[in-house]
Amino acid sequence: MARIGFIGLGRMGLPMARNAAKAGHAVRAYDITTAYHQAATEAGIVPCNRVDDAIADCEFAITMVPTGRQVHEVYLGDEGVLAKLPAGALVIDSSTINISEARALHDAGRTRGLAVLDAPVSGGVMGAEAGTLTFMVGGDAADLERARPVLEGMGHRIFHAGAAGSGQIAKICNNMMAACGMIVTAEAFALAKRFGMPAETLREIVSVSTGSCFSMTNYPPVPGLLPNVPSSREYTNGFAAALMLKDLRLAEQAGLDAGLPLPLGQAAAALFGMFCSAGHGQLDYSAIIKMLEGN
Amino acid sequence: MARIGFIGLGRMGLPMARNAAKAGHAVRAYDITTAYHQAATEAGIVPCNRVDDAIADCEFAITMVPTGRQVHEVYLGDEGVLAKLPAGALVIDSSTINISEARALHDAGRTRGLAVLDAPVSGGVMGAEAGTLTFMVGGDAADLERARPVLEGMGHRIFHAGAAGSGQIAKICNNMMAACGMIVTAEAFALAKRFGMPAETLREIVSVSTGSCFSMTNYPPVPGLLPNVPSSREYTNGFAAALMLKDLRLAEQAGLDAGLPLPLGQAAAALFGMFCSAGHGQLDYSAIIKMLEGN
Amino acid sequence: MARIGFIGLGRMGLPMARNAAKAGHAVRAYDITTAYHQAATEAGIVPCNRVDDAIADCEFAITMVPTGRQVHEVYLGDEGVLAKLPAGALVIDSSTINISEARALHDAGRTRGLAVLDAPVSGGVMGAEAGTLTFMVGGDAADLERARPVLEGMGHRIFHAGAAGSGQIAKICNNMMAACGMIVTAEAFALAKRFGMPAETLREIVSVSTGSCFSMTNYPPVPGLLPNVPSSREYTNGFAAALMLKDLRLAEQAGLDAGLPLPLGQAAAALFGMFCSAGHGQLDYSAIIKMLEGN
Amino acid sequence: MARIGFIGLGRMGLPMARNAAKAGHAVRAYDITTAYHQAATEAGIVPCNRVDDAIADCEFAITMVPTGRQVHEVYLGDEGVLAKLPAGALVIDSSTINISEARALHDAGRTRGLAVLDAPVSGGVMGAEAGTLTFMVGGDAADLERARPVLEGMGHRIFHAGAAGSGQIAKICNNMMAACGMIVTAEAFALAKRFGMPAETLREIVSVSTGSCFSMTNYPPVPGLLPNVPSSREYTNGFAAALMLKDLRLAEQAGLDAGLPLPLGQAAAALFGMFCSAGHGQLDYSAIIKMLEGN
Repeated sequence: MARIGFIGLGRMGLPMARNAAKAGHAVRAYDITTAYHQAATEAGIVPCNRVDDAIADCEFAITMVPTGRQVHEVYLGDEGVLAKLPAGALVIDSSTINISEARALHDAGRTRGLAVLDAPVSGGVMGAEAGTLTFMVGGDAADLERARPVLEGMGHRIFHAGAAGSGQIAKICNNMMAACGMIVTAEAFALAKRFGMPAETLREIVSVSTGSCFSMTNYPPVPGLLPNVPSSREYTNGFAAALMLKDLRLAEQAGLDAGLPLPLGQAAAALFGMFCSAGHGQLDYSAIIKMLEGN
Repeated sequence: MARIGFIGLGRMGLPMARNAAKAGHAVRAYDITTAYHQAATEAGIVPCNRVDDAIADCEFAITMVPTGRQVHEVYLGDEGVLAKLPAGALVIDSSTINISEARALHDAGRTRGLAVLDAPVSGGVMGAEAGTLTFMVGGDAADLERARPVLEGMGHRIFHAGAAGSGQIAKICNNMMAACGMIVTAEAFALAKRFGMPAETLREIVSVSTGSCFSMTNYPPVPGLLPNVPSSREYTNGFAAALMLKDLRLAEQAGLDAGLPLPLGQAAAALFGMFCSAGHGQLDYSAIIKMLEGN
Repeated sequence: MARIGFIGLGRMGLPMARNAAKAGHAVRAYDITTAYHQAATEAGIVPCNRVDDAIADCEFAITMVPTGRQVHEVYLGDEGVLAKLPAGALVIDSSTINISEARALHDAGRTRGLAVLDAPVSGGVMGAEAGTLTFMVGGDAADLERARPVLEGMGHRIFHAGAAGSGQIAKICNNMMAACGMIVTAEAFALAKRFGMPAETLREIVSVSTGSCFSMTNYPPVPGLLPNVPSSREYTNGFAAALMLKDLRLAEQAGLDAGLPLPLGQAAAALFGMFCSAGHGQLDYSAIIKMLEGN
Repeated sequence: MARIGFIGLGRMGLPMARNAAKAGHAVRAYDITTAYHQAATEAGIVPCNRVDDAIADCEFAITMVPTGRQVHEVYLGDEGVLAKLPAGALVIDSSTINISEARALHDAGRTRGLAVLDAPVSGGVMGAEAGTLTFMVGGDAADLERARPVLEGMGHRIFHAGAAGSGQIAKICNNMMAACGMIVTAEAFALAKRFGMPAETLREIVSVSTGSCFSMTNYPPVPGLLPNVPSSREYTNGFAAALMLKDLRLAEQAGLDAGLPLPLGQAAAALFGMFCSAGHGQLDYSAIIKMLEGN
């Protein structure tokens, strides 16, 4: 069993830390708020008031925070976590951040003799709570093997995506594809509806044809086709459009950094940007169908 | 066994007619060219010099022509096929055409007491030759049951998509989704490549994640991932970009007719339009990745 | 002074007919409603209950109706206006319709020995009321000269755009450019605002630079820069977004008919489509800035 | 007359420095290459082998380099120009760079008690050679007044765009508008051509209508309409598409940094990205019409 210093106990981080504790690891935790203290204590996690206390004796530092800026604030600088970690500790950053930011963290770790894994997740709040997250991990394979017992406490599937930053690349590419797949699925459903074709029939046919995608088959934006998807519960408790927008902006940033045009990815970023501007950012991303149909 | 009058013996129609004959049906055929005569005769098809001869005694008239205009020229008007078909004959139009054009054909048939099925296919030339096409059929269910033995000679899967025109709707929606899926898959592969991530790794991860789609898993635009896809044979012998463009324009037309915005479908139509303008229309549609990466 | 049969007395048609009457022409009018009767009578126009009465003795038939379908319903068929016009009458269709529909009307007129001008306008309701419309006219130059005295009663500028249908081409191209110009102007203003740059400064600089366009200089979407534009009166009394959408769809249709990709024109059509779906169709088209900024 | 240290003697910088010298200023220059030495000497400029020599005694440091990274390399750090400038020297950066990078330079200058102006230009190589550039200047108005005699040696129009970074904002917004204006102008010309309407007629009509923009009126992408534009000399000696792409990426970056969707600006970036990927980056940006028409 491992000693873990967990930083970032928000909607994702808290259930992840809880599952790590449940799996038998010793978890000490820190967050800029104290809202999580009671829930953490009840789960056998030791809440700390200073980040230094959380990581003092850890074998693994895990971060789950919203932005790359925050990741850098946590780890870098003379007072950052990298400067204070015990020798041999392994850094696991599960935040979804820019590829370049992730690589900078690897570089900073290397300078101090510390190994880093970028390990963003998919599966959302529900996956975090159920301990069924997917981890996409960038960094050395040997480091991943070291981390695997810890990650397995929080997720079901653990992919080695490749070298430093590859976890972010995989995450960003996947979510860009998920967003575009959702929009065009919504377009297809809306078009079929206008011509009187039942959504279920379209889904049956496309799901076994060249146009098939996850959104059409497993996560349809039309209510009532599947019982347990956000569209069937008024687009609640899913993957918020605002978070999808964040990931699309990371994809757009990656395209800019690489000098690569992403015509559909950029268009999806603009569409979700307008959708969120219109006040729908907290709905599941499948609610984008409302933009086409005018709710 | 049925008597079939087959009109349109091009790259798709000829192998379809050949499979129908092989299945034991009596096939008489007509095309505006005579290029197909020898191959037809060898396959046991009777080539005719006049369309009237092909349909004179048929139970099923099947058409496979490139455009809705040609479908209307074949069937409508005082000298059209609808005016000359034997009573009780069933019309099966397998061309991919506008929804409104397909519905007009149904209406014209109904006026003359003739049943019509719109039955566009997917599977391409290879599917036509192997007899493994998918038929998406619009029209009465009872008429489809009547046609099923004939269609089963040419394809493996036969879907009842719904009322008149629904076959076209399903085809158009599916191909719009396939085109967008292909473009965003290409974007993801190109992006991962710029950051040094192997294509195979990306494919493995995305294929079991929320971004999965047919293009990523089964039809990747990057050469070498799968042996039998067009990208692994220099984008030849696939589904030509020019044909995908045709279907995207049908989707765009459907959106216009319905007053529905299709932001990604329209963008895909523009991208394939520019790709074909640049002289690449005969390549498989997965070659669209060249537009992003250059060369 | 000419005898005019005016068909279509809506928000545009009524003030146009009124100005024609004010200019001294004898105007008889017909509309499918009778709402205009009193206003027409007060303006010296003779309202008719049957279209045949309006055109019985006319030298010019003028139509101003919303769609190409209605234009064809008015003119074509055995009971249509073309079949009933006096010999030598000149048809002036000021509706904004598909290029192909406009050309079909020219052809139908030619068949009956009647000359046709497609003469769509710009300037909106205010231009119609002030008699300051711009006419973009397609058809024979000699016919335009014949019509000029009539058109000059309703507008200030009369362009000969070229052969049959060219009026529609000019109108459609212009409005597609106006829509795109408006969207990118809105993007620029919104971007500058986010970085603290005053809108007036941006307008001053861009207006004399390579990015200048009508929307930036003369019709800014930001309130308060110019006193007499819709943005300064809460986007009322302008050119309705729904009408701009109609014209963008005509442009998209023209692109489809010509097999030409229109990447920005299509994108603008999708954006205005979503804007109108969200319930904003009655606002001036400069209100599209709300989609970016989230009103 | 002022003492100027000029850094970056490329295609833009060299003619700018030459005009400054011609206007009577004492110019010392530095570049990472020495290719400019002879031309500089002939123009009365003193070429230096070390940047420190160029700025040793200057009143104005002027930079004209391709990227923000280079700007920061020149100015920042312990060995950077800011650390070595004489007290009271004024920094003028005429490079086109990210707004955030420009603001960081202002901040770094302020820390050292040095005033900075961001002063990107428009007008291209020809404007630089003719001394007719437009300067869009961000920073304190008093500093601009101090710099005005220097800028007037190189350009005709000098705008105070506002506070730190505002020069970049104005430049980026303008060029994003110019790019979108060019694309939609190309779409309109291509569409009109398909329907047989002469380009000159379209230009005449649109230029006085709501769709008017600089590209249509002053810089048409169709050859032969105006004698002195790049389209009339095979798209040479203009504003390279690759440079327009650079500016569109700056706009996209600004949108990302601000969290603002730029649907048309982003689409234009993708289009120019693909155009440059296809090998056309050295053509004038009006050559984008080839992408629509398939040269």
